[in-house]
Amino acid sequence: MPTDRRSPEPREPVEPAAFAPADDDHPREECGVFGVWAAADAAALTALGLHALQHRGQEAAGIVSFDGERFHSHRALGLVGDTFSDARVIASLPGRAAIGHNRYATTGDTVLRNVQPLYADFEFGGFAVGHNGNLTNATQLRRALVRRGCLFQSTTDSEVFVHLIAISLYSTVVDRLIDALKQVQGAYSLVALTAEAMIGVRDPFGVRPLILGRLPSPAKEGGWVLASETCALDIVGASFVRDVEPGEIVVIDDNGVRSIKPWAKQASRFCIFEFIYFSRPDSVVEGTPVYEVRKRIGAELARESHVPADLVVPVPDSGVPAAIGYAAEAGLPFELGIIRNHYVGRTFIEPTDSIRHLGVKLKHSANRSLIAGKRVVLVDDSIVRGTTSRKIVEMVRAAGAAEVHMRISSPPTTHSCFYGIDTPERDKLLAARNDVAAMARIIGVDSLAFISIDGLYCAVAGVARDPARPQFCDACFTGDYPIPLVDLASPANDRQLSLLAEG
Amino acid sequence: MPTDRRSPEPREPVEPAAFAPADDDHPREECGVFGVWAAADAAALTALGLHALQHRGQEAAGIVSFDGERFHSHRALGLVGDTFSDARVIASLPGRAAIGHNRYATTGDTVLRNVQPLYADFEFGGFAVGHNGNLTNATQLRRALVRRGCLFQSTTDSEVFVHLIAISLYSTVVDRLIDALKQVQGAYSLVALTAEAMIGVRDPFGVRPLILGRLPSPAKEGGWVLASETCALDIVGASFVRDVEPGEIVVIDDNGVRSIKPWAKQASRFCIFEFIYFSRPDSVVEGTPVYEVRKRIGAELARESHVPADLVVPVPDSGVPAAIGYAAEAGLPFELGIIRNHYVGRTFIEPTDSIRHLGVKLKHSANRSLIAGKRVVLVDDSIVRGTTSRKIVEMVRAAGAAEVHMRISSPPTTHSCFYGIDTPERDKLLAARNDVAAMARIIGVDSLAFISIDGLYCAVAGVARDPARPQFCDACFTGDYPIPLVDLASPANDRQLSLLAEG
Amino acid sequence: MPTDRRSPEPREPVEPAAFAPADDDHPREECGVFGVWAAADAAALTALGLHALQHRGQEAAGIVSFDGERFHSHRALGLVGDTFSDARVIASLPGRAAIGHNRYATTGDTVLRNVQPLYADFEFGGFAVGHNGNLTNATQLRRALVRRGCLFQSTTDSEVFVHLIAISLYSTVVDRLIDALKQVQGAYSLVALTAEAMIGVRDPFGVRPLILGRLPSPAKEGGWVLASETCALDIVGASFVRDVEPGEIVVIDDNGVRSIKPWAKQASRFCIFEFIYFSRPDSVVEGTPVYEVRKRIGAELARESHVPADLVVPVPDSGVPAAIGYAAEAGLPFELGIIRNHYVGRTFIEPTDSIRHLGVKLKHSANRSLIAGKRVVLVDDSIVRGTTSRKIVEMVRAAGAAEVHMRISSPPTTHSCFYGIDTPERDKLLAARNDVAAMARIIGVDSLAFISIDGLYCAVAGVARDPARPQFCDACFTGDYPIPLVDLASPANDRQLSLLAEG
Amino acid sequence: MPTDRRSPEPREPVEPAAFAPADDDHPREECGVFGVWAAADAAALTALGLHALQHRGQEAAGIVSFDGERFHSHRALGLVGDTFSDARVIASLPGRAAIGHNRYATTGDTVLRNVQPLYADFEFGGFAVGHNGNLTNATQLRRALVRRGCLFQSTTDSEVFVHLIAISLYSTVVDRLIDALKQVQGAYSLVALTAEAMIGVRDPFGVRPLILGRLPSPAKEGGWVLASETCALDIVGASFVRDVEPGEIVVIDDNGVRSIKPWAKQASRFCIFEFIYFSRPDSVVEGTPVYEVRKRIGAELARESHVPADLVVPVPDSGVPAAIGYAAEAGLPFELGIIRNHYVGRTFIEPTDSIRHLGVKLKHSANRSLIAGKRVVLVDDSIVRGTTSRKIVEMVRAAGAAEVHMRISSPPTTHSCFYGIDTPERDKLLAARNDVAAMARIIGVDSLAFISIDGLYCAVAGVARDPARPQFCDACFTGDYPIPLVDLASPANDRQLSLLAEG
Repeated sequence: MPTDRRSPEPREPVEPAAFAPADDDHPREECGVFGVWAAADAAALTALGLHALQHRGQEAAGIVSFDGERFHSHRALGLVGDTFSDARVIASLPGRAAIGHNRYATTGDTVLRNVQPLYADFEFGGFAVGHNGNLTNATQLRRALVRRGCLFQSTTDSEVFVHLIAISLYSTVVDRLIDALKQVQGAYSLVALTAEAMIGVRDPFGVRPLILGRLPSPAKEGGWVLASETCALDIVGASFVRDVEPGEIVVIDDNGVRSIKPWAKQASRFCIFEFIYFSRPDSVVEGTPVYEVRKRIGAELARESHVPADLVVPVPDSGVPAAIGYAAEAGLPFELGIIRNHYVGRTFIEPTDSIRHLGVKLKHSANRSLIAGKRVVLVDDSIVRGTTSRKIVEMVRAAGAAEVHMRISSPPTTHSCFYGIDTPERDKLLAARNDVAAMARIIGVDSLAFISIDGLYCAVAGVARDPARPQFCDACFTGDYPIPLVDLASPANDRQLSLLAEG
Repeated sequence: MPTDRRSPEPREPVEPAAFAPADDDHPREECGVFGVWAAADAAALTALGLHALQHRGQEAAGIVSFDGERFHSHRALGLVGDTFSDARVIASLPGRAAIGHNRYATTGDTVLRNVQPLYADFEFGGFAVGHNGNLTNATQLRRALVRRGCLFQSTTDSEVFVHLIAISLYSTVVDRLIDALKQVQGAYSLVALTAEAMIGVRDPFGVRPLILGRLPSPAKEGGWVLASETCALDIVGASFVRDVEPGEIVVIDDNGVRSIKPWAKQASRFCIFEFIYFSRPDSVVEGTPVYEVRKRIGAELARESHVPADLVVPVPDSGVPAAIGYAAEAGLPFELGIIRNHYVGRTFIEPTDSIRHLGVKLKHSANRSLIAGKRVVLVDDSIVRGTTSRKIVEMVRAAGAAEVHMRISSPPTTHSCFYGIDTPERDKLLAARNDVAAMARIIGVDSLAFISIDGLYCAVAGVARDPARPQFCDACFTGDYPIPLVDLASPANDRQLSLLAEG
Repeated sequence: MPTDRRSPEPREPVEPAAFAPADDDHPREECGVFGVWAAADAAALTALGLHALQHRGQEAAGIVSFDGERFHSHRALGLVGDTFSDARVIASLPGRAAIGHNRYATTGDTVLRNVQPLYADFEFGGFAVGHNGNLTNATQLRRALVRRGCLFQSTTDSEVFVHLIAISLYSTVVDRLIDALKQVQGAYSLVALTAEAMIGVRDPFGVRPLILGRLPSPAKEGGWVLASETCALDIVGASFVRDVEPGEIVVIDDNGVRSIKPWAKQASRFCIFEFIYFSRPDSVVEGTPVYEVRKRIGAELARESHVPADLVVPVPDSGVPAAIGYAAEAGLPFELGIIRNHYVGRTFIEPTDSIRHLGVKLKHSANRSLIAGKRVVLVDDSIVRGTTSRKIVEMVRAAGAAEVHMRISSPPTTHSCFYGIDTPERDKLLAARNDVAAMARIIGVDSLAFISIDGLYCAVAGVARDPARPQFCDACFTGDYPIPLVDLASPANDRQLSLLAEG
Repeated sequence: MPTDRRSPEPREPVEPAAFAPADDDHPREECGVFGVWAAADAAALTALGLHALQHRGQEAAGIVSFDGERFHSHRALGLVGDTFSDARVIASLPGRAAIGHNRYATTGDTVLRNVQPLYADFEFGGFAVGHNGNLTNATQLRRALVRRGCLFQSTTDSEVFVHLIAISLYSTVVDRLIDALKQVQGAYSLVALTAEAMIGVRDPFGVRPLILGRLPSPAKEGGWVLASETCALDIVGASFVRDVEPGEIVVIDDNGVRSIKPWAKQASRFCIFEFIYFSRPDSVVEGTPVYEVRKRIGAELARESHVPADLVVPVPDSGVPAAIGYAAEAGLPFELGIIRNHYVGRTFIEPTDSIRHLGVKLKHSANRSLIAGKRVVLVDDSIVRGTTSRKIVEMVRAAGAAEVHMRISSPPTTHSCFYGIDTPERDKLLAARNDVAAMARIIGVDSLAFISIDGLYCAVAGVARDPARPQFCDACFTGDYPIPLVDLASPANDRQLSLLAEG
């Protein structure tokens, strides 16, 4: 349930960072990671990869490169293109190895000290790491480390990795890393860089994606790539090799790729929301094309909750593939009844109340002459707080729609995510407090339907959910959390990570 | 044939403005205009209107307001949201009347002195004006005015309006304006502001659009709005009153709207390209919904040049409505085979060669698993230079398409526009130098087809083109220029407008 | 009576430019001008010259160069070094001829449209001009020109020059310039640039300085320089040739220097305040070294108003030479009893009241251990409003001074200047409302003395003032204005120059 | 031997920070510290104090405040006034306690991670510290701490303080601090802030100054101030209480000031260069007024190395007090023969070679009419590399001086400082490689003389140097280093502190 600009839900206003407890400092972001080993222009390729993964995080971006002797870092708030399209920035990141990280966008203040990749000078050399996911015992570990004399620079959960590695009694980097990983709980896909190797890690449940690719031999000398999604391989012309497996560590150096599996084999629990919304439609995730899955979800929705109508309209842009699938299955025309304004950008901050009250109109406008007098099926991917859905419906009605039926390509979102997707507190989730009929009234539609959990599983994987051992992590729909929520069990006031409020 | 970021054609690299002859200084931009009379928050409403008209010009934007005593101006390079979402900027534009102007985006240097609305202190008071269109005798007039002792501030063609008004021997503003209009030739939709009235003007041929709207009574006190398109009425909640007619001057003051028609009635020649590409799909232009027209063009294309295929793919985003029409008529699935990256923005400037060579991939990516092995019909709105089309086709082929057929929702663009749409010199137009078969080879498609001129007229207006008196301006397709190209007839070296190259 | 940062008087807070009548828009600045003809790196040399003349104006700076074909302009708010130390800016100003202008600093908003050199495209070619001084009939002329249809771009008095030239019926630039000059009244030293020549002009009274210099032959090819002061020759290694004479036009082209004197010879009235404060101490002005003059004024002061004391302390930095002269004549030690903080800069804007109330302490601090228990003679150059003097005295008393005697190296400032030095309205001048005894009480000193007008004349020129035909302009001390104050005689509400308030 | 902008020596060009070994990353800066306890507007007062101490460091500045609950930090490159004159910045630093730090200016890249005060979240709460001085065993300690698993954020020597405190086994902050201090060697004056107290520390030799002051009772509630110099007390209206003693820790909390002396008493070795150049002339240092000392040095110089001459000219601004003393003793006139341009600022970066070659002229200009034909005694405070001295002499000769005699108010600088003043490597010091006669030839003077070491001691303290136990640290003149140079004894390649080169 990400709430970035593509989301159907407006983000809560974030207070100026007077206090920075775990929640407000956003340690639980969704993110994208990318890395290149053994290729010319490694930092430029990483910038491209991060650009292709921009949908996974728009708050900040960073790259660390290694030139054979020293590490080079550049981290900045804002989009990848804002920072890394400057030739001087790329030139300041020399070397044939680099890793990068995209961080999730917020409207409030974000501090540079939290932007990844994190870097540390260990006794044995430099080490950089980017993390996609979220740890569930980071606060507990942090407290213990501080007690021991460790000084934390950031308020991210990810920093515990570097301290655990720093104090490990093992001697090699990989052994120290395994030592650290055995102490953390939660979801993590990591890309790390040392002087000797690039390392990829995926947690035992494989909640977040991580893939291995290879650059074409002549042009880029057959270097290796790690990335969150296949769309980041496409942009640099790399070919897909394989998924990094749940519970696998891949160590990539000049001898090739070495695989280490320090955990006993267990059933994976990949995040099903990656299919519904988060991954890019042109990515192939866990072997399945995302676009195809979304069309199948739309078709399933049409079968489960058909309604007589004149046209099917996606809420742009994320609702488009499901709407195409719905329209085809329902035999209704697919139409662009809502136009998205591509120029809203990051900067339209609504200077006056009269503009602010226009709300969603800055981003979307109704195609009046198309909609007027018609029965409209609106297709969207999810309902989080419900505030944007209500505005969209209002706009469609004001354009003269005769009926408005909303169809959602996910089950009701009833629980928060603690594995790397930022969701509101549970009591802010519309579906946690209301049944579907009540939600329909609140949003103002003539009918509302969500896909069933089994329908979703069928569309994604071809079989229904196995309640005994679910094939995916679907905690946001079911409350079935596969990994213990350790920190959540601690007293709430325990969660302040730093006494420093930095401007 | 606009060449902004939504265009299928990359803009020619613009030289650092060492020389600023008429061409490089872009006096021939396409633009958007907006004005509000008698409403609270006039400048904020104008910012919204310009935001809705952002597709008509992304280079720069400006607003002039009048507070009953003084005029206030803010003009800046960049998008409307970059500048006018700052509450301090809006606060610096007090008053119940305001006009604004969007100017077409270029990648090269643009100088502030050319940003509109232009403002002048006349003997009788302040006067501001924004101009959409292009004059064809501006250079000739400018030369005569300079000879008389007039000092030009800008290199825009629009500045002749203010000097002609300043030196007119008539006494009222409106009489002076008419005096000026009778001396200019070309395409113009104007919005002007004085202490007494807001004025809208459309040239006798009505080449560019201009509409009149009204704000809802209670909220905004029934103030009046002038705008280039209806989508700008929607965003401020105004209702459509009527088109300003070709050859009409509307003078809006506290007594209402007065209409003046200083020219003999003649047949209008509205720009047909506004339907094909330039206007927003949710606008109603000259009484016809643009989205509907584009679907009809797509259907006509399917009838005229059917080809066996597996799927219809739009070149995003402008090709979407025509592709929907084409797919429905051809009975083929409509699919998002090309994904547009929404984060490219203005700032991704490709720091290295290895990134630059990836070219179009920063903006678009192919949906590989959808396209591989399929016969694809690509639908786009126009081909100007052909360079982007070639890259798109290359990308689609690299994704494994079995066949690529391109269908264009306009006739071949064989001539430059001189009435307000920036097009390359004629010899840069692919269709000016090649027949369709040669174009297909250059672009690399299995087949290429354009809609016929009569097919286009039927889709737009329901009847074929009348060669004796064409119903629209279609000079870019036919070379039939309705308004004399006076300056073009002068010697080329005559066109340098200023000896000043400002940094 | 300049009130820049070196001034003993704080500038009145300037309102945000909601209204821009003549006074608030500061058309009456003191300025510096510089020009180079026929030398490599002309713009770089001009930047240096303006840097040496920075004390004459810190508000803004501009340079226009000519490359043999086109003119190039760069103008910016701020110090010369802020803008023209950027290699890209200098590179954007190619050519072997350039002129530049420094504009006086204000704390309020200043608009770019008022920054000089002004540039105009005349029928016969480009023309740029920088103006030091102030016209006394500019408003009257402006009104007539606007009535004729001239459109003014700025609110500076200087713009009337370019319009008068543009509409002149003469054919050559020089004849048109003379035609224009004959219509203006006031003080002006001009440096102008055309494609054929660099032109220097000094008004018939020679109120403001202007000198001619020459670059060394081998290095800079013997090019010519025009400048406000000799210190600007020194920095570029040019030698002093001669003063441009009052009422003289020098036309410098590749044939050398041509002198034109279009007025009947009359007695000059050079501004005596240039000696007291405005010119740099290392300049030679009207044949006399400024530093030497200031020491002589100090010595004269000591003779005129001796007082028993322990040490002589200058108010830094402008009071130093007079204090040295005073101390030597009085046989007292010269000591740095007040330390100036060199880091105050333009940016220390006092964020809180508690800092604001410390006032002068940010700029100056008392040397406590030196001053405590001593009888101190403070030497300063002038008293305008008196507010800073009062704070300085307070600070010196707080540091423990036994007695504080203030000696001023100019006569009481009783009248405003209208010839190019920004002074407060007359009723804000302390000396206009109080006799010396009252001023001493207000400022809080044990004694206060000003140099006599005859003492000043003797120190400057060796002879007393000739009341019949004073040798200098001393209007600020005597009210004897040599040039008629035409605009001042018009009704005050007539002075609004523009209805536009630009942000 | 600081080499900031007031220095007679240009700084060596600093390489873009491709490598950041200890030397290039400037851990050995001279700095200023300031702190306030128990006063309203603590951050604003600290900004003022840092402003008064700006001469001690212009590279960067930072403030940490404590509001009773959380700490707030703002650190930035540039001058105090550039950053802390912004009301929003001060408002972001709430609380009644604050400490601040000025860091020495360099022309090269400086990274934010090195700007102080450093802040750490310890187990027992927040801790901030600012350090003036330089440690001589910081690299050795750092290596041991990294080995233990400590992660360093900066490359400053000062960071070892916080890690040593973090890992100390003692329980109270003060005990942990003493534990840390006992492990470090070098020069340090510290100001630290915890939730309970403000702490001041001076190393056992008292190399750097630190003083205690008190705010006036009614206005600022009698809060306490720590500062490097008395001039910082004057600006906030605080009274001088006493010097913090060498080897003393002062703990200031709401119960008042507690003194702790954890070391055995030993003879102090205050830095004698603080008197010659570094401290501000209006400060009272170690009980002695700096201005008075400098005049006495000048007088002693005149006695030691008299030469027949016409005038005494200071090299501005640091040479002025010594020149006054010299002139008075020698019976010669004191004259401003060199004018300093106050507008050079940080930004005049000399865009072209022709400007660069003018070198010193941007900063200084000769007062030609004063100097021509005269025998000039130039008085300056020190000669480091000698390059600026040579340019100054060249400029004075070019202005026509008959003879140039240089007198230096310190002995020859023959050794580098390792206790907190940035000096070039020893082989770059002119006096390390040349005798006085050779130096005179290189600089181009007719005669050159330095004050003798005993003359200096007499002027400062009234007695000659005791070679057995010198009363001051004078290592830069004598090579007698009171504190062991531990790190310097280690192999040079050992000194790389971080593998990260941050942009």
